[in-house]
Amino acid sequence: MIEPRLLKGFRDSLPDTEVRRRDLVAVFQRVFAAFGYLPIDTPILEYRDVLLGKGGGETDKQVFGFTDDGGREVAMRFDLTVPLARFVAQHQAELSFPFRRYHIAKVFRGEKPQRGRYREFFQCDFDIVGTESRSADLEILLLAAASLESVTSRGFRLHISDRRILPALLPQGSNSVEVLRAIDRLPRAGAEASAARLAEALGTEDVERILGFVTRGTDNADTLSRMQQAAANTAAAPLVDDLAGFLEDCRTAGLGSRIVLDPAITRGLDYYTGLVFETFLDDLPDLGSVCSGGRYDDLTSLYTKQRFPGVGGAVGLDRLLAGLEELDALPPAEGPADLVVCCLADELGGHYHAVAARVRAAGLRVLVNTESRKLDKQLVAADRAGIRWALVIGPEEAAAGTMNLNRLDSRERFNGLVLEQALETIADA
Amino acid sequence: MIEPRLLKGFRDSLPDTEVRRRDLVAVFQRVFAAFGYLPIDTPILEYRDVLLGKGGGETDKQVFGFTDDGGREVAMRFDLTVPLARFVAQHQAELSFPFRRYHIAKVFRGEKPQRGRYREFFQCDFDIVGTESRSADLEILLLAAASLESVTSRGFRLHISDRRILPALLPQGSNSVEVLRAIDRLPRAGAEASAARLAEALGTEDVERILGFVTRGTDNADTLSRMQQAAANTAAAPLVDDLAGFLEDCRTAGLGSRIVLDPAITRGLDYYTGLVFETFLDDLPDLGSVCSGGRYDDLTSLYTKQRFPGVGGAVGLDRLLAGLEELDALPPAEGPADLVVCCLADELGGHYHAVAARVRAAGLRVLVNTESRKLDKQLVAADRAGIRWALVIGPEEAAAGTMNLNRLDSRERFNGLVLEQALETIADA
Repeated sequence: MIEPRLLKGFRDSLPDTEVRRRDLVAVFQRVFAAFGYLPIDTPILEYRDVLLGKGGGETDKQVFGFTDDGGREVAMRFDLTVPLARFVAQHQAELSFPFRRYHIAKVFRGEKPQRGRYREFFQCDFDIVGTESRSADLEILLLAAASLESVTSRGFRLHISDRRILPALLPQGSNSVEVLRAIDRLPRAGAEASAARLAEALGTEDVERILGFVTRGTDNADTLSRMQQAAANTAAAPLVDDLAGFLEDCRTAGLGSRIVLDPAITRGLDYYTGLVFETFLDDLPDLGSVCSGGRYDDLTSLYTKQRFPGVGGAVGLDRLLAGLEELDALPPAEGPADLVVCCLADELGGHYHAVAARVRAAGLRVLVNTESRKLDKQLVAADRAGIRWALVIGPEEAAAGTMNLNRLDSRERFNGLVLEQALETIADA
Repeated sequence: MIEPRLLKGFRDSLPDTEVRRRDLVAVFQRVFAAFGYLPIDTPILEYRDVLLGKGGGETDKQVFGFTDDGGREVAMRFDLTVPLARFVAQHQAELSFPFRRYHIAKVFRGEKPQRGRYREFFQCDFDIVGTESRSADLEILLLAAASLESVTSRGFRLHISDRRILPALLPQGSNSVEVLRAIDRLPRAGAEASAARLAEALGTEDVERILGFVTRGTDNADTLSRMQQAAANTAAAPLVDDLAGFLEDCRTAGLGSRIVLDPAITRGLDYYTGLVFETFLDDLPDLGSVCSGGRYDDLTSLYTKQRFPGVGGAVGLDRLLAGLEELDALPPAEGPADLVVCCLADELGGHYHAVAARVRAAGLRVLVNTESRKLDKQLVAADRAGIRWALVIGPEEAAAGTMNLNRLDSRERFNGLVLEQALETIADA
């Protein structure tokens, strides 16, 4: 006997969870389609060098990789962004640009498993590739907002910034990637640890100035004027002006109240080169961002000389589900069916299924009990499972072409109906 | 520079294909839900011993397995049936039985890549676990038929048999698994090679008798009487009678015309213990089965002493898609959107997105062009992509709150409309 068990950091999805994920995915698919985004898929397994480039970074350690039977170095994808870059480079002749795609699929990371962090999880990415326009940046924010609005009426805010601004404020020769990463970790690491890390990357005298810069004002206008002050007479000034114009566009497009200008948003990842954003639920700020992304202008440079600037975002599907569950903001789980056909005699199986088919044709979800048990037990079990209606058909009814309909929540009974009457009774209830 | 490329046997799914797969999956999800089946998911990566048992079989060689960083022997799942058995054994206390589940997900096999065979592909499984009833067998066939009916109006037939019959006809001491496998390969291997293989497993004198038995009659009644004749006075006789009763149930349930009694159906896999079936498109018999399955009564015995008999089927999603494509039986690919908002001036981006949001609220799919190009080019590109409507808004119209609507296929133009008029024009078309 083998113990049925899972690898650390992996989990099964039981029907209650999976139904909710499926419904969430279906809603996102509709929203993406409404914006003209098309789905793609890529393999879970790819050449290691294609996914990791020359490698050596932090990702390299986290990847599930191995040598396959043909001696090839392969790896399981750890995100959907690198495969997108490879996909665009490889299929550029078959795509039309700007190319809008979404991709909802599993990724794998050998991270240390911890609360809410798994080694296998879903990502839900949307990107527009092949344009540098500010309008595309705006579209990604609108799509992020529309996606979340479609699954919850709870409040949320998109925190945005431009990742080029901060480096332009640093003293010459600073390690700007390190600084951006330290800022990115501010909310988690705490002020003291962050100041220390920043000081290391930056030299002490600049730490206070930079920490001041990344602190939000009382509102967007206040934050903007602080940023303009800090950027005055530096290379950052035109970037801040540009951001001010972008904020104006957001207002025009109806997104104004969702946007929080937040210079502390840097996104840790090296590849962002402009707009960056993270999204927080008003009622659960500590959950972390449920939808993040930004602009990247050199993503495909590993695979092609052709330039494909792009901008995109990703919904943290599992985190969002966990958050909505914590807020009790998910629709209540519905029963597995609207109606059950009880089984009073095994030899009537064919008849039960024939009746079920006609009820399904009327748009109802129908469960057929496949084994005869005491009727009471069947009714109680169906009621407990959340099924509202039961059809009870014994040999006499089957011969007469009739049926008894029970409403399980109210215990009403409607006896001796023909199918059309049963369907009418249900429709009228 | 790294060459963007894929591993042999793996492939990308471009939007045209992926849209069709997504639509097919959505239809199947609706059908499964209509039968009271719930979705689950399991990890792609599991302990190798959990997936393969003691191993050593053919599957063992095909599995993508490796030793992970923690020294664990792991493997990528090669089907969804073994994970179901593990899942049921592990979560039995959380599930109610009979447990009806579906699972649409990727599986991985290191098979030699060849035409139509890939190392990564989708499976679409549906099973009912925890019942031995004939009614459950019937339900699986009905679900298979309903799934296919929901995606094509082309004809198809379910070929069914009972896997216990043939072994009961074999001489004592025959290797019945080998015989069943040889029969399973008949259509592919050709009569001569099969006879040789059968003779090896069976001894020459029985070959002709068995080949006679697995040959279909002119119709189900004829096949049945041949089977009854061959089974007379053997242990197979009650099994054939049972199958006759099951055929009667199929007729009662309205499935009669879809069923072909076919004693040559054995399914190669060891774990089937009763009903087995395969499904063929009338117009493409050589495509092979697009939906197969059967009853298995000991699947979970590797993981638990508790017995969970079950029956299930699987749609070959990729094969079905390929078949429907070959028959030109898929709905025509629709454009990426119903309407495009053209871009005449970059600074109007916010306005274009605001208009687009209102058009989407009316239920249309809307693409916003994010870069200003010559209007003609935008209209031609949209028409080519299959988009029917275009909104043209310059600075004057934006200031006046109006817009020009173009119908791209007929080149009609409706100028100076407000949004409500544009929506009415579209609705009336």
